[in-house]
Amino acid sequence: MAMDTGAFLTKLATSDHSSVVSMNLFVALLCACIVIGHLLEENRWMNESITALAIGLGTGIVILLTTGGKSSHLLVFSEDLFFIYLLPPIIFNAGFQVKKKQFFRNFMTIMLFGAIGTLISFAIISLGAIHFFKKMNIGSLKIGDILAIGAIFSATDSVCTLQVLNQDETPLLYSLVFGEGVVNDATSVVLFNAIQSFDLYHIDSVIALQFVGSFLYLFITSTMLGVLAGLLSAFMIKKLYFGRHSTDREVALMILMAYLSYMLAELFYLSAILTVFFCGIVMSHYTWHNVTESSRVTTKHAFATLSFVAEIFIFLYVGMDALDIDKWRFISDSPGKSVGVSSILLGLVLLGRAAFVFPLSFLSNLTKNSPHNRISLKQQVTIWWAGLMRGAVSMALAYNQFTRSGHTQLHLNAIMITSTISVVLFSTVVFGLMTKPLVRILLPPSKQITSMISSEPSSPKSVIVPLLSNGHESEADKGSQHVNRPTSLRMLLSIPSHTVHHYWRRFDDSFMRPVFGGRGFVPFVPGSPTEDVVQWH
Amino acid sequence: MAMDTGAFLTKLATSDHSSVVSMNLFVALLCACIVIGHLLEENRWMNESITALAIGLGTGIVILLTTGGKSSHLLVFSEDLFFIYLLPPIIFNAGFQVKKKQFFRNFMTIMLFGAIGTLISFAIISLGAIHFFKKMNIGSLKIGDILAIGAIFSATDSVCTLQVLNQDETPLLYSLVFGEGVVNDATSVVLFNAIQSFDLYHIDSVIALQFVGSFLYLFITSTMLGVLAGLLSAFMIKKLYFGRHSTDREVALMILMAYLSYMLAELFYLSAILTVFFCGIVMSHYTWHNVTESSRVTTKHAFATLSFVAEIFIFLYVGMDALDIDKWRFISDSPGKSVGVSSILLGLVLLGRAAFVFPLSFLSNLTKNSPHNRISLKQQVTIWWAGLMRGAVSMALAYNQFTRSGHTQLHLNAIMITSTISVVLFSTVVFGLMTKPLVRILLPPSKQITSMISSEPSSPKSVIVPLLSNGHESEADKGSQHVNRPTSLRMLLSIPSHTVHHYWRRFDDSFMRPVFGGRGFVPFVPGSPTEDVVQWH
Repeated sequence: MAMDTGAFLTKLATSDHSSVVSMNLFVALLCACIVIGHLLEENRWMNESITALAIGLGTGIVILLTTGGKSSHLLVFSEDLFFIYLLPPIIFNAGFQVKKKQFFRNFMTIMLFGAIGTLISFAIISLGAIHFFKKMNIGSLKIGDILAIGAIFSATDSVCTLQVLNQDETPLLYSLVFGEGVVNDATSVVLFNAIQSFDLYHIDSVIALQFVGSFLYLFITSTMLGVLAGLLSAFMIKKLYFGRHSTDREVALMILMAYLSYMLAELFYLSAILTVFFCGIVMSHYTWHNVTESSRVTTKHAFATLSFVAEIFIFLYVGMDALDIDKWRFISDSPGKSVGVSSILLGLVLLGRAAFVFPLSFLSNLTKNSPHNRISLKQQVTIWWAGLMRGAVSMALAYNQFTRSGHTQLHLNAIMITSTISVVLFSTVVFGLMTKPLVRILLPPSKQITSMISSEPSSPKSVIVPLLSNGHESEADKGSQHVNRPTSLRMLLSIPSHTVHHYWRRFDDSFMRPVFGGRGFVPFVPGSPTEDVVQWH
Repeated sequence: MAMDTGAFLTKLATSDHSSVVSMNLFVALLCACIVIGHLLEENRWMNESITALAIGLGTGIVILLTTGGKSSHLLVFSEDLFFIYLLPPIIFNAGFQVKKKQFFRNFMTIMLFGAIGTLISFAIISLGAIHFFKKMNIGSLKIGDILAIGAIFSATDSVCTLQVLNQDETPLLYSLVFGEGVVNDATSVVLFNAIQSFDLYHIDSVIALQFVGSFLYLFITSTMLGVLAGLLSAFMIKKLYFGRHSTDREVALMILMAYLSYMLAELFYLSAILTVFFCGIVMSHYTWHNVTESSRVTTKHAFATLSFVAEIFIFLYVGMDALDIDKWRFISDSPGKSVGVSSILLGLVLLGRAAFVFPLSFLSNLTKNSPHNRISLKQQVTIWWAGLMRGAVSMALAYNQFTRSGHTQLHLNAIMITSTISVVLFSTVVFGLMTKPLVRILLPPSKQITSMISSEPSSPKSVIVPLLSNGHESEADKGSQHVNRPTSLRMLLSIPSHTVHHYWRRFDDSFMRPVFGGRGFVPFVPGSPTEDVVQWH
């Protein structure tokens, strides 16, 4: 009787009991990843991504053995799950926690890397694929497939970048590599769509111009949408905040508005990743200062936790999915060919990234007067290396191009899917494992901190803002006051981005903050948490 | 070109564009509910549930008009969505934020109301349904359907109860009505399953005993599972906490462990709601004290926010689903019959609840020596009234019994579904609207506070724990020290629940807290947040 008792509840809950088993195992594995990741944190080689990948692979093997080789994954890889639920919190949190000053100071370099760089990488990988794959006997690839391969392997994995680079240790590199990853997405969307909709056999200057126009349209509208959503949330919370506090409502509104901006971007066919990234930046600049102290602590950590869990989820998932037996069965008769294709693609990824990082860094350095702001050769090598990882975005794009409804029919498509998995696993594990030691060898912490002081002055945060750990945003803001204000004359004579930043500050202080709130511009309300920092609501 | 650009992304994201439109509208409506709910907070009649229901109904009408009467809802009502994603955070948060002392002091009364009371209500509604529906010409109801109706309309809506009763204003009523709602679920699971699996035409004493045994098994194992999951999380976080803080990991582990306990209960066919409720209680008693200060603030508000959004989501959903044209088309030829059935069911709900609240309160009062602890007649009326609301649980049960894969085929089933919706809407809106004024009339705040002082001593929390707003748990704990310690002799002579509580405190202090942590029992670690309350990590 007892075992029958809940049959109803299970029937209510899910259509079959096996999916409950899967969900249990998956949640338990997530817990295991967190605990093991915590225990291995001191280890200089490991990081949470690689732990999750390894646990995912291990579980995949166990499931493969227990089911007698029938299946290896608990859940089928779903693009919906990835793009609708897992990616938004990661990118939003990145925007929310990014050091804004650092990001905007390097804005032109980031754009150069993300847009032009991705195009160069795309061209080299596509040309290389045409050159090498024609010689190999792997079936006839259409021009669309070749170009799709270029787009798939040009997509830098910004999730993995967040794991291996540390914003506090290497802020310049972090903002360059991560910012590039975000812009890279917009470029990938345009590229991938162009491949699927343009007439690829008749490329002329009109189509090329359309392509550029489309990119600019996508970039500007996506950014504007994110900024508007962020400003709207700041305005709403500032107006609603008439002496009454409701942390739950504030936190809920911030999460929902951010998600709404992502979904609106999807609705209007924009780059949702760009939108939610800029929404995060605006929210941390205005909205975050309009809410109660406990809302600030909650949002800061809740967004980071969501992002953290989503990241582990993705890597666990990719690790488990990699052993899916269906895909490997197709290519089991020609293992050498698959290894060959994977090696060629890995080589092209390395080459494609080198082909834009070094020339574009040279170009970027030409525009900088101060040697402090230039990207040194060691930093260039690190940027090149840290962006080599390919992750869930590449997987999702490959599934989109080479499978129909999750199944791999053709021999050629199976090779492409397995090669993508191989490249993703190899680049994440090998390149990922080597990034932390590489950063330490090329840019030792002591020297690193010295060279970074000019671009990211660290204020004694524990004295100024004892309640805000990690000095979320206030660090950059305080810094700008300490450094910029007394030297505004020199600044106007120096590089233009500083001047732009200076005028932005004046515009922000005189117009934006009084309307949308922000640090120090929330009106005084009796009993408000800004009145007394020790009183928590 | 621009509009084509993102076609790929949409294809990646969701199978069709209309679901993106639906999600946007739904998220926007959630935001609207929060803002409007905030603006109407001062209103003594309204609450967030009714606002969400009204907005849902309004949106349903607009969609009905714009689609020309084809459809009224954005999403199809899904039991999976409700039981797997929306209910767990609500019940977990209720356990996490519940005043534990109040809850356990009234444990026997809660059990009496939740188990025996639900059975009485079930019997009366079933008998009433047999009596009245036989006279009406609505088709032949099977005995299983009749009993299912009894179970469906005995399921108190604990979500709505949380909205209309205030834990701080009326702690005794809150713990009684809400606690009853949680136990009610376990009873409903057994009842509903019994109806679907037992041979209903041959009920004898053996089956009745099996039924009682099954209920006890379900209750005890579900509770133990929740307690074990909570203790495991406390132990893990205490052991992992060797001088290093990681708020993100702690928050993630707490959320994942709580969810794991819910899913494990589903896996073992237990009452997942009971499990996650007790997991929340244990987590707030042990785990919550082992984490960093910022984790405490984050979990407290993040859980409340999740629960808040899930609640609004449910009411918005029910409001929208109520206008689904498919269901009403079947009964459009006999509107009077549907109104009749709904009225009879509403009457039976009122009668069934009255039939156990007043007699059981009388029984409960017989065991209490002190007049302060007795439930007064005014309080009994409030308990009766506040538990009359039927909500999403009733909807889910009705869909499970009377539809096949979400569609209503039979005329009789259509009447039952529409009647359930009518009862849910009417009880939520009318009874819900009248609960707040009723509580104010029957139990005026000043008198209320006086009569409550004995059962819930309010310590001057702003002095003792300035950093913990709402005095989460510490209020009850401090209170127990102030009141119980000096009067332990008197206590031993007084009612047994106090004695049990006293021995529990001793066991907790000498054995549980040193192992699992808890308030004041986290070992001192240099740089730990317990060392300096102002320093936030």
